[in-house]
Amino acid sequence: MSDRWSTGRLEAFSDGVFAIAITLLVLEIGVKETEFDDLWHAIGAQWPSYLGYVTSFVTIGGIWLAHHSIVRRLDQADANVMRLNLLLLMFVAFLPFPTKLVAEAIDNSSAESAAVIFYGLDLLAISVTVSGMWRYIAAHRDLLAEDVGAEEIRAISSRTAPSIGFYAAVVALAILAPQVAAFGYLAIAVVAVFRSRGDRTVSRE
Amino acid sequence: MSDRWSTGRLEAFSDGVFAIAITLLVLEIGVKETEFDDLWHAIGAQWPSYLGYVTSFVTIGGIWLAHHSIVRRLDQADANVMRLNLLLLMFVAFLPFPTKLVAEAIDNSSAESAAVIFYGLDLLAISVTVSGMWRYIAAHRDLLAEDVGAEEIRAISSRTAPSIGFYAAVVALAILAPQVAAFGYLAIAVVAVFRSRGDRTVSRE
Amino acid sequence: MSDRWSTGRLEAFSDGVFAIAITLLVLEIGVKETEFDDLWHAIGAQWPSYLGYVTSFVTIGGIWLAHHSIVRRLDQADANVMRLNLLLLMFVAFLPFPTKLVAEAIDNSSAESAAVIFYGLDLLAISVTVSGMWRYIAAHRDLLAEDVGAEEIRAISSRTAPSIGFYAAVVALAILAPQVAAFGYLAIAVVAVFRSRGDRTVSRE
Amino acid sequence: MSDRWSTGRLEAFSDGVFAIAITLLVLEIGVKETEFDDLWHAIGAQWPSYLGYVTSFVTIGGIWLAHHSIVRRLDQADANVMRLNLLLLMFVAFLPFPTKLVAEAIDNSSAESAAVIFYGLDLLAISVTVSGMWRYIAAHRDLLAEDVGAEEIRAISSRTAPSIGFYAAVVALAILAPQVAAFGYLAIAVVAVFRSRGDRTVSRE
Repeated sequence: MSDRWSTGRLEAFSDGVFAIAITLLVLEIGVKETEFDDLWHAIGAQWPSYLGYVTSFVTIGGIWLAHHSIVRRLDQADANVMRLNLLLLMFVAFLPFPTKLVAEAIDNSSAESAAVIFYGLDLLAISVTVSGMWRYIAAHRDLLAEDVGAEEIRAISSRTAPSIGFYAAVVALAILAPQVAAFGYLAIAVVAVFRSRGDRTVSRE
Repeated sequence: MSDRWSTGRLEAFSDGVFAIAITLLVLEIGVKETEFDDLWHAIGAQWPSYLGYVTSFVTIGGIWLAHHSIVRRLDQADANVMRLNLLLLMFVAFLPFPTKLVAEAIDNSSAESAAVIFYGLDLLAISVTVSGMWRYIAAHRDLLAEDVGAEEIRAISSRTAPSIGFYAAVVALAILAPQVAAFGYLAIAVVAVFRSRGDRTVSRE
Repeated sequence: MSDRWSTGRLEAFSDGVFAIAITLLVLEIGVKETEFDDLWHAIGAQWPSYLGYVTSFVTIGGIWLAHHSIVRRLDQADANVMRLNLLLLMFVAFLPFPTKLVAEAIDNSSAESAAVIFYGLDLLAISVTVSGMWRYIAAHRDLLAEDVGAEEIRAISSRTAPSIGFYAAVVALAILAPQVAAFGYLAIAVVAVFRSRGDRTVSRE
Repeated sequence: MSDRWSTGRLEAFSDGVFAIAITLLVLEIGVKETEFDDLWHAIGAQWPSYLGYVTSFVTIGGIWLAHHSIVRRLDQADANVMRLNLLLLMFVAFLPFPTKLVAEAIDNSSAESAAVIFYGLDLLAISVTVSGMWRYIAAHRDLLAEDVGAEEIRAISSRTAPSIGFYAAVVALAILAPQVAAFGYLAIAVVAVFRSRGDRTVSRE
């Protein structure tokens, strides 16, 4: 005997958390009034904040697309899906903190490596949780909508899994070259957005 | 004569408040730039903030699951349900303030007990309000969907009620051992998430 | 010729703004670490913040109920309804600023009167806009769902209109007795929540 | 072969971001306690903050109306629409930062021009992205709902396109007369709200 949840509120609640986490990122960006004498220079000097903003925005955007792809194929959620989803949201909503750390610590030679690794560990945790959620669902076919075929399941698995390896590699890279790693996270996120998979696949002539 | 509300916007509005309260928790976490010389140590020293973040996140997650279970069984809401729901949201949206107090006051011997008790009182108020909302609905069967049986009502009552006793006990414990009590809140929240009940109960062979 | 909008996203977007405005209120509350020696006293000394939090929360909750009552009776929105709704949301989303002012200025004899009047003017603007929105809709019957009767229109008009008079009176009172007026806003909000009208009126035996 | 997304969560997620960006704007407004001796004067002296709040609010409100008009005419989204939408949300969620800069820098002769131009560049980016999203959809008729006619497509194109020219002109004006340009942005936003187009066009006798 097991409990089941419909997916409507799972979507609504998750969309709320994604939308807020993505929007709070801007609150960390600011210019001190003492720098107003040369405001263009001060605006330019915020580039680590913009890098952090764009990377976290694109990352959360990609996770939202992946989440969308997964939940649309669910017929219903069981208790474990609800718990894995809460865990995923907990890692996503945490992201503004390491984002802020990276923006502040870059160009600080004693701190930037730690900040970039810490940021990468949160991205890795997000990626592992999304993959785990999909693997769990794929292993419980009765949770899936009836028209989801084996090939579709494999396609989604292969698109959610590789990020884990990339994140692990870039976190390792962050020990040696933290600034390169910071751009590496952005590259992974952009690739993830361009590889995400829709609700349906249609043929076009 | 009495007024009735459909439950669609009750869900949407409540999900919005839950999602925002859960996401704002991260704004309280930060590391001062003076601590960047040893950033790993500074990140580790934030453990009371992480404990507060995780505890409040899991608590609100559990309340969201309970709220979901309750509202899905409602056919329509009356004015008292709307008011109890606003009261619940008021206690939930308040949670970032005591969470911040606990994170700041732990390891401060003159303040930690007050902070942990104050936090527990908000959790107790949330728990009493959720229980009260369900008791009110259970006593007004015409608000419930037709297929909700007496056994299902009892099952939900028994899952929302015990938290009240646990919270009261842990608040009392906070007078003597505030740090133990802080972890006690986390334990209650984790148990609540693992006991929450779905929209339907299905049998599996 | 005129443009029409369906009401689904009007509801979703407005619920988002209401939920966020109501939840941001808590960010203004805090205790300085210098006051941790006597934390219970410091928690108690925040009473103006709690009064502001509860008043603004209950006010926005009441406006949400009124908005819910209005939009549920709409068949479709025209461009003026969309604009009046944006104006309403602009006054609602502004509320955290005067709320913060009242919480900080109470007990400051030179500032509390201005803060309480400024807060009341925002409440008055909200109330006038909600009333105006309903009056506009009531005067354009083709916007309303077909089953909304003349008596129902009058009932909603009479429940949204009187707040305007009350707010004007309490704003005037704030010149002489600002602290009394601050509690007066709370009283108006509580009454509004208890007078709000559901989606349907049903008879009970 | 291409992937398709249904538009329900696109709407929900975008509404969340719009609602939060619009509501966060108020967090930047505040009065220092040192100015409480003459609070009315201090409230009045915040006029640049109010101008920024109202301009950004009306701008985002207008973008929300335009977004609503576009998405309602979509039958389904493809991957490019999802990506353009994320890009749009990234520029919209960024707006609180230049809004804050304008509010702080106005009346500071060395900074106000840079702040107003920077703000205008974000508005221009938003406007170009909305236009680009509509152009892309109009060029892929299979994404549109069947009942959307050629004339309706032209009408929406002509209403989203001109803002680009206006924003470019006002950004140029900001080099010479930044305060005039700041009010120019407000004027463009108000006009956009008054020109937005509904879900359907109906004839009235």
